[in-house]
Amino acid sequence: MSQGIRRIGVSTGGGDAPGLNAVIRAVVKAATNKYGWEVMGIFDGFDGLIHLRKAKLLTPLMVRGILPRGGTILGASTRGNPFAYPVTVKGKTVLKDLSDTVIRNMKRLRLDALVVIGGDGTLNITYELYQKGCPVVGVPKTIDNDLSATDKTFGFSTAVTTATEALDKLHTTAESHHRIIVLEVMGRNAGWIALEAGIAGGADAILIPEIPYDIQRVSQRIRERCERGSRFSLVVVAEGARPKGGKQSYVETNVPGRLPRLGGIGNQVGEALARATGMDTRVTVLGHLQRGGSPTAYDRLLATRFGVAAVDLVARGGFGRMVCLRGQRIASVALSRAVSRMKAVPSRGELVQTAEALGITFGR
Amino acid sequence: MSQGIRRIGVSTGGGDAPGLNAVIRAVVKAATNKYGWEVMGIFDGFDGLIHLRKAKLLTPLMVRGILPRGGTILGASTRGNPFAYPVTVKGKTVLKDLSDTVIRNMKRLRLDALVVIGGDGTLNITYELYQKGCPVVGVPKTIDNDLSATDKTFGFSTAVTTATEALDKLHTTAESHHRIIVLEVMGRNAGWIALEAGIAGGADAILIPEIPYDIQRVSQRIRERCERGSRFSLVVVAEGARPKGGKQSYVETNVPGRLPRLGGIGNQVGEALARATGMDTRVTVLGHLQRGGSPTAYDRLLATRFGVAAVDLVARGGFGRMVCLRGQRIASVALSRAVSRMKAVPSRGELVQTAEALGITFGR
Amino acid sequence: MSQGIRRIGVSTGGGDAPGLNAVIRAVVKAATNKYGWEVMGIFDGFDGLIHLRKAKLLTPLMVRGILPRGGTILGASTRGNPFAYPVTVKGKTVLKDLSDTVIRNMKRLRLDALVVIGGDGTLNITYELYQKGCPVVGVPKTIDNDLSATDKTFGFSTAVTTATEALDKLHTTAESHHRIIVLEVMGRNAGWIALEAGIAGGADAILIPEIPYDIQRVSQRIRERCERGSRFSLVVVAEGARPKGGKQSYVETNVPGRLPRLGGIGNQVGEALARATGMDTRVTVLGHLQRGGSPTAYDRLLATRFGVAAVDLVARGGFGRMVCLRGQRIASVALSRAVSRMKAVPSRGELVQTAEALGITFGR
Amino acid sequence: MSQGIRRIGVSTGGGDAPGLNAVIRAVVKAATNKYGWEVMGIFDGFDGLIHLRKAKLLTPLMVRGILPRGGTILGASTRGNPFAYPVTVKGKTVLKDLSDTVIRNMKRLRLDALVVIGGDGTLNITYELYQKGCPVVGVPKTIDNDLSATDKTFGFSTAVTTATEALDKLHTTAESHHRIIVLEVMGRNAGWIALEAGIAGGADAILIPEIPYDIQRVSQRIRERCERGSRFSLVVVAEGARPKGGKQSYVETNVPGRLPRLGGIGNQVGEALARATGMDTRVTVLGHLQRGGSPTAYDRLLATRFGVAAVDLVARGGFGRMVCLRGQRIASVALSRAVSRMKAVPSRGELVQTAEALGITFGR
Repeated sequence: MSQGIRRIGVSTGGGDAPGLNAVIRAVVKAATNKYGWEVMGIFDGFDGLIHLRKAKLLTPLMVRGILPRGGTILGASTRGNPFAYPVTVKGKTVLKDLSDTVIRNMKRLRLDALVVIGGDGTLNITYELYQKGCPVVGVPKTIDNDLSATDKTFGFSTAVTTATEALDKLHTTAESHHRIIVLEVMGRNAGWIALEAGIAGGADAILIPEIPYDIQRVSQRIRERCERGSRFSLVVVAEGARPKGGKQSYVETNVPGRLPRLGGIGNQVGEALARATGMDTRVTVLGHLQRGGSPTAYDRLLATRFGVAAVDLVARGGFGRMVCLRGQRIASVALSRAVSRMKAVPSRGELVQTAEALGITFGR
Repeated sequence: MSQGIRRIGVSTGGGDAPGLNAVIRAVVKAATNKYGWEVMGIFDGFDGLIHLRKAKLLTPLMVRGILPRGGTILGASTRGNPFAYPVTVKGKTVLKDLSDTVIRNMKRLRLDALVVIGGDGTLNITYELYQKGCPVVGVPKTIDNDLSATDKTFGFSTAVTTATEALDKLHTTAESHHRIIVLEVMGRNAGWIALEAGIAGGADAILIPEIPYDIQRVSQRIRERCERGSRFSLVVVAEGARPKGGKQSYVETNVPGRLPRLGGIGNQVGEALARATGMDTRVTVLGHLQRGGSPTAYDRLLATRFGVAAVDLVARGGFGRMVCLRGQRIASVALSRAVSRMKAVPSRGELVQTAEALGITFGR
Repeated sequence: MSQGIRRIGVSTGGGDAPGLNAVIRAVVKAATNKYGWEVMGIFDGFDGLIHLRKAKLLTPLMVRGILPRGGTILGASTRGNPFAYPVTVKGKTVLKDLSDTVIRNMKRLRLDALVVIGGDGTLNITYELYQKGCPVVGVPKTIDNDLSATDKTFGFSTAVTTATEALDKLHTTAESHHRIIVLEVMGRNAGWIALEAGIAGGADAILIPEIPYDIQRVSQRIRERCERGSRFSLVVVAEGARPKGGKQSYVETNVPGRLPRLGGIGNQVGEALARATGMDTRVTVLGHLQRGGSPTAYDRLLATRFGVAAVDLVARGGFGRMVCLRGQRIASVALSRAVSRMKAVPSRGELVQTAEALGITFGR
Repeated sequence: MSQGIRRIGVSTGGGDAPGLNAVIRAVVKAATNKYGWEVMGIFDGFDGLIHLRKAKLLTPLMVRGILPRGGTILGASTRGNPFAYPVTVKGKTVLKDLSDTVIRNMKRLRLDALVVIGGDGTLNITYELYQKGCPVVGVPKTIDNDLSATDKTFGFSTAVTTATEALDKLHTTAESHHRIIVLEVMGRNAGWIALEAGIAGGADAILIPEIPYDIQRVSQRIRERCERGSRFSLVVVAEGARPKGGKQSYVETNVPGRLPRLGGIGNQVGEALARATGMDTRVTVLGHLQRGGSPTAYDRLLATRFGVAAVDLVARGGFGRMVCLRGQRIASVALSRAVSRMKAVPSRGELVQTAEALGITFGR
């Protein structure tokens, strides 16, 4: 089936995730070594298929040394969606459907297939391109690990590791100085990073979007600890956490020229706990630290397996599909199903119960 | 079923693996918090059930802070097997079956169940104790990840991470100085560490026990790289690797007062490659670095889940069983089946093929 | 001179700094091994000399394993100053001079000398105690490195390393996503952490208290970078940085039950740069991460040398003095001089000029 | 004085040291930004001035991102000395003086000055070139820190950190399993790495070239520890350590096509200690791990300061000199004096005495 293929493209879209370069490298190496294809790097997401100067051939030598590096050598779009692309007409910005341009440019670049590495939004666009006849294959990417179609995504292990190392550092200082320390981590819709890092880093409370919290429960747990001689507590809060009966304080306003308005849930929780317990309290907001850095061995391996699997999928003609992890095995799934559902933390699942067995409170 | 249980014991046996303390902590916390049991730490493996002074109650406060630490607070036996325990009789050392002593002492300590964390050898003994009526539950432990009854073991991720970080460090110096660098890693019977670290660390050749290597193939690959402008190569060798038609050079001689005789496969491979290619070659032997250090977030989480699951297994009366990971889920398996088979790297499996698609040679 | 000494005390005071445990360990080991003295750990700063139950003998075995750990096994006072100690009298809190209690309790505990590890504030109190006849020796501690009497303090290297690693992580994500990333680090009065981490982490702008900044200069530099193809910038901001003609936004309000009001200089700078450049901008606030974690090899060594030198100083009868680093050598200085002057970053010094030679702007 | 200068060259020579790229980057940036000069990278040491195709212009953009990377983008010579350069004449290799070629090629490349980053050997050659009228400036480089003309060299802090982290990892496994673990580190002539890492990593014995050891003293110390309840010991051994009355086992044989014969002092010490104590003993040889990896913040800063200072030295016409660190300040010294003396560990100096005060034995 791969006989017709001579050249493929590869692009990355959306937010940063450690492991992107490992996927790109694997795609280039596998396509070249195993199938003898050429690989063209498409820069700045789908922008690179709208503005042709943003594409160039990638050889194995050109991807040498990028395996351990964070970021993406292909850049990521800031404008993004070719189905609603911002174009300036008579001084005004209007959104135009440039998907035909994308398909035309794929032909001009003589791309027989396109591997798109991206999150929810990017994969949705990829699916729409597929429906218009584009030979695409997807590679899932989200550091939040909230895609239901794959058991794990690369980047997540690195983000959890960064948050866990932060907890390790905060632990000793909290303990020595009898403090509450609140760590705000990523996770707007799903609390996976908070949950896994919280367990791995020995947190005393974990607040996640899936389980609305009662601040009194949290402060009660902290007081109990004090009574038993542990005069400090670590609280991990996901960005999207919200009090029982309250709303998420996270508000996305990605306006150029403005800082995104963070709701500051970490500070809210810290302020509330300081008041409720009278204890010395500090807040740390990890922010983009979680998206950067050298990927963990786990993420490099998963990203590499995804990259090779995506090339194999192209070779088998499996267009409109996305590679994924099921258990410990690499598999694939139709893009149509891949992007339809988020994967939330089951509020009575094994991980949450493991945490509760250890004495960690979710504030419920 | 857990109604009769008031106190359980926990012990660790065999070689070191990062995450042991995380299991101990989880057992103590879950038993105490969730079930209200007491937990007794048994020191120095089964020795602690032969010499009673080697056991003491562990409270949650006593396991505070051990989550991120390597090693085991319970120590590990150097003598071990109660079914063939070395005893000095009239100046001579003879092996005696002291398993009845173990069972008697469990009663004296009023232990209603015993959680044993150990590898192949320790779990075998645990199974024998079970057959004699002992209420035991196992937690698998091997940094080699070579137990067939569980998809992953804790400690393995940390070992792979240590080896991957070593490759990262060796990479820049190999590249700048146009060298072959050979890294010898653990893995006497199974090449999992070499394979995963080799892929994650960007190795050019990976030599594992499961795929006997032809040194000519390896040096040919290195020469090809040179011709294409990559005047350096990284070769990962598992301890148990062996040449086609040759024998493993690893010989285990764990005699007190003598260094274990290492076969030095790393040096053998290095010497052979230096001769075959004429290139500057260096060898690093990681050794026990792979067994030490703070466990990765992955290992801490897996170890914690295992610990809680073992306590739950005790509560359900699941004696004679071992907790395990299947895909991403925690499960359990009969000890009889758990210890019967090793898990070798499938020589045509997805991971090996992924490596080969990247251009990594196994010397076959 | 050391003949009269049989037992000394050791205490830590003030904010956390990686290396405190290394000093304590060195004091205990050197006093015991080299001089045969006993060492008594005084807990929670000077509180431990007001409330006698907060002191206990420390043996070398008791400090085993603490060398690589952050925090302090002796805790730190939250109330602190024995010359103005908060005491509740008839339901009201009044400040009382309890320095005589401290001196009396030192005698009761049979302490022939006291080693105090602390920052500016703690060392001032130590000096006052010395003036009242107390045989004290000081060890300087500040992660800000702003004590003029010593060239370096332990904790500083670890804080710089944490901030540098943060810049490494932010670098790849800033570069891939064409962003300005602002990193706020510690440094209320002195910009040493920002300066050293900024150079070591490849920052493009460094804003410190010693050099008031003009935001236009900073955004101009960022635009110049964009024009030359570097469509991203990293800006390091010390807590105490302030705009030209403006005030520090940092306000210290260490009120129990309230979060300290941070002025949020990081967010201010981020907001201003986003507006001035129109670029996507993100802010990370490291906070207490900088005070935690395992000390670097440098800090462990310096802390250990300080600890041994403090014991030697006691043995020589050098009371009222503080150990310090001069160049690469350990020396000592009178406490009276030690605490009188801060060490600010010289605004035309070699380090600042080095940064400017690299093209880093200070916004002046 | 810098008026005549328009273009300078920069080259690296000798063994690898983390921080080389940081120096190169600083030289390129400072020369370009501060003085408006061009910088030409000379590849593979002095080879690049013998074979002209091995030189190219370096712009600031070309050194972007290399600050945190180990190795050197300029490569390092394997043949090296232009005063005795191996040339094949009628099938035979003879050594020829090609220093005139070097000087001629500097003129052809229109280099007004040359910055050479190198160790003992490379700096000697640099000095000889200076004597022949070459406008050279040196930057010292040795991870062993054994140059007397500078208080510290970059690379050393990274090597000490790598060795310290190794000790951290070995510590927990040694403690849990009641073992002696021997760690062999670099240091053929000077024991600085062993000494600093040994103190920072909590070693129990440190064996260095400067203090010949008596193995009985070492095993006696280990037995004493056992008696006091510490049933494990960590021993750090420098490559060049030797027994009292014995010879160094290190033999340098850098023959292409052969592994360098390591004397295996680590294994020798391990074998002797296993025999003398009867304890379980393991040996780890760090090897080239110490030369690789991302430089520490300390090394990046020092390397950057050296690079900028070297450019300033060129601007001031300070040819024939080498930049160095004196105390905490950057200075310079005549090359003639710089290379004449090694800096050994003073066997009764403060660092050794600090170690002994902690109870660390040197086997004397």
